[in-house]
Amino acid sequence: MMQLRPELMKYVRKVEPYVPGEQPQNKVVKLNTNENPYPPAPQVEKALRETDTERMRLYPDPAAAQLSKALAKYYQVGEDQVFVGVGSDDVLSMCFLTFFNSDRPILFPDVTYSFYKVWAGLYRIPYECPRLDEEFRLVKEDYYKENGGVIFPNPNAPTAIYEDLDFVEDIVSHNRDVVVIVDEAYVDFAGKSAISLTEKYDNLLVVQTFSKSRSMAGMRIGFCIGSPALIRCLNDVKFSFNSYTMNQAALECGAAAVEAEEYFRETVQKIVDTREWAKEELKRLGFEFTDSKTNFIFARHPAHDAKELFEMLKKKQIYVRYFEGGRTSQYLRITIGTREEMEQLFSALEEYEKERGR
Amino acid sequence: MMQLRPELMKYVRKVEPYVPGEQPQNKVVKLNTNENPYPPAPQVEKALRETDTERMRLYPDPAAAQLSKALAKYYQVGEDQVFVGVGSDDVLSMCFLTFFNSDRPILFPDVTYSFYKVWAGLYRIPYECPRLDEEFRLVKEDYYKENGGVIFPNPNAPTAIYEDLDFVEDIVSHNRDVVVIVDEAYVDFAGKSAISLTEKYDNLLVVQTFSKSRSMAGMRIGFCIGSPALIRCLNDVKFSFNSYTMNQAALECGAAAVEAEEYFRETVQKIVDTREWAKEELKRLGFEFTDSKTNFIFARHPAHDAKELFEMLKKKQIYVRYFEGGRTSQYLRITIGTREEMEQLFSALEEYEKERGR
Repeated sequence: MMQLRPELMKYVRKVEPYVPGEQPQNKVVKLNTNENPYPPAPQVEKALRETDTERMRLYPDPAAAQLSKALAKYYQVGEDQVFVGVGSDDVLSMCFLTFFNSDRPILFPDVTYSFYKVWAGLYRIPYECPRLDEEFRLVKEDYYKENGGVIFPNPNAPTAIYEDLDFVEDIVSHNRDVVVIVDEAYVDFAGKSAISLTEKYDNLLVVQTFSKSRSMAGMRIGFCIGSPALIRCLNDVKFSFNSYTMNQAALECGAAAVEAEEYFRETVQKIVDTREWAKEELKRLGFEFTDSKTNFIFARHPAHDAKELFEMLKKKQIYVRYFEGGRTSQYLRITIGTREEMEQLFSALEEYEKERGR
Repeated sequence: MMQLRPELMKYVRKVEPYVPGEQPQNKVVKLNTNENPYPPAPQVEKALRETDTERMRLYPDPAAAQLSKALAKYYQVGEDQVFVGVGSDDVLSMCFLTFFNSDRPILFPDVTYSFYKVWAGLYRIPYECPRLDEEFRLVKEDYYKENGGVIFPNPNAPTAIYEDLDFVEDIVSHNRDVVVIVDEAYVDFAGKSAISLTEKYDNLLVVQTFSKSRSMAGMRIGFCIGSPALIRCLNDVKFSFNSYTMNQAALECGAAAVEAEEYFRETVQKIVDTREWAKEELKRLGFEFTDSKTNFIFARHPAHDAKELFEMLKKKQIYVRYFEGGRTSQYLRITIGTREEMEQLFSALEEYEKERGR
């Protein structure tokens, strides 16, 4: 009885059946969903322990002021320039709904975050996907044509490539009359954020997340920063559909995480150091990869099939990410774990190499 | 610079400007948003204090199994019959998106939860609103005609009227080939839940929330129960758009709340007792009201203008809810607070009466 009667099925939305990312329960080396290998800041635990549970009976602050204030202070922008949501997925989806209401197609790269297509479909937004070049780089001239809006991640995923702020500014300035969204989920591992450009460009929105650099995927916190007028539009739409989304624990833990600046910087630096060392190791093992500026490496081996490598690692309880089909089907996306986790990965790869060499 | 340039404004979604419900910061008697006057169960606080914050670095369980299991056990249904979301608003919105994809109008009452219209607009679902009768009761025959789906709250809000299960079953059985959603946000204060009918009717979904009877508005938890086939459709749609919504703290606190059965029953009983006493008091003061089975009373005074009463109370730091315009513009929606809070309300009303009598 898992299928609906055909009569009932008639008006049910048809969606692509989704296969959730593997969340193995047993002890494995989990390098498949770009989570941070380190726990959140001690201040986050403290905030959770001290949460006023009596207050839980009340609706949370719909303006999420505690968290917005902390972010505004950290990024030196006005509180009215910050919008927060239940993970950057919620923020991005709200941005699509709010700003992409043109008959002209919005533009995003052919190889990029897979949910852009999903939200465009959900909200019936036409889109075009300019092709990344042979080195998986965005071609900025592709974004000069007439469009209903632009979105791209920087660094891009799963390619891991970061473009500098001149590149970002070029695209933003060529699209002054539509909203340009820069999705910076991984920027803390990369370089300068485009947040500094939001002062100059009222059509720019920069989206970030607490799931990677702030070790808080489990708490679902994302945000974006832009001109007060853009943020106001987002709030108008959000409040008209669902006033209360961020729960009290997320607001309190999120604010505490932002204030834990030193821990944040140290953790990010550890991951960047591990990544640079991991690049050397992968090179030694014969892998080719883009110059990652994220907390993952996008790599292929000229002599080995990616899917075979993926399956082999999985058998050894090491989970990396493999995307079936398309231009990237010979690549693996490997999250940067702790040094120990990466060593386990490299041992497994070395062992495989030896076995095949026999 | 709070307005976007007209060029940029062109593709921005137009929405009704929303006025958020008042969330006064100072010490007031807050009887305006149907929150529970009692804190959540002590088990909830314990769960929060014991949360494994190291786990926060990982994405939460997309299946929300910990919470779904607790609910399945409590309501004696299968785990595959439970779907959870970020408050019942999230669950309801997901239901609209999943099940209401017909060209025929969906049906819901003219006086009911205001967000039904909003989601229908968002997802471009045609709708019709059969008129409640003169006593604010649903007329079941209005729901016999061809439609693309049916949704109504039971008890209805803001009317506070509960219809018995025969009434609900009548509507469900007259609409076997569309999905019928019964929104039971207030049912714990009323009587039997329609959950028992889900075994018999594969077209019935029952939605509930933790925001009222479980004192957890601040944690944003809602759920629905239905046949495994209906729940599977919801999960397919949800996973295709946003896999991770419920954060770790909500899953853990939610499960703890469900297990705290005795506290739950006692708290609900206290509110019901206060409500029944409050009805007597309101009668004494000359108010007329429907026979509330919720944690609020929907009342009017034949001699006083509702808006004037609302403003008078507000000046005395007592907040109730007033809905401008329409059939209900002479009514106040008064949340059941503690006995002490209600006494403050009645004193204020008495004082007003005396002053006007002079």
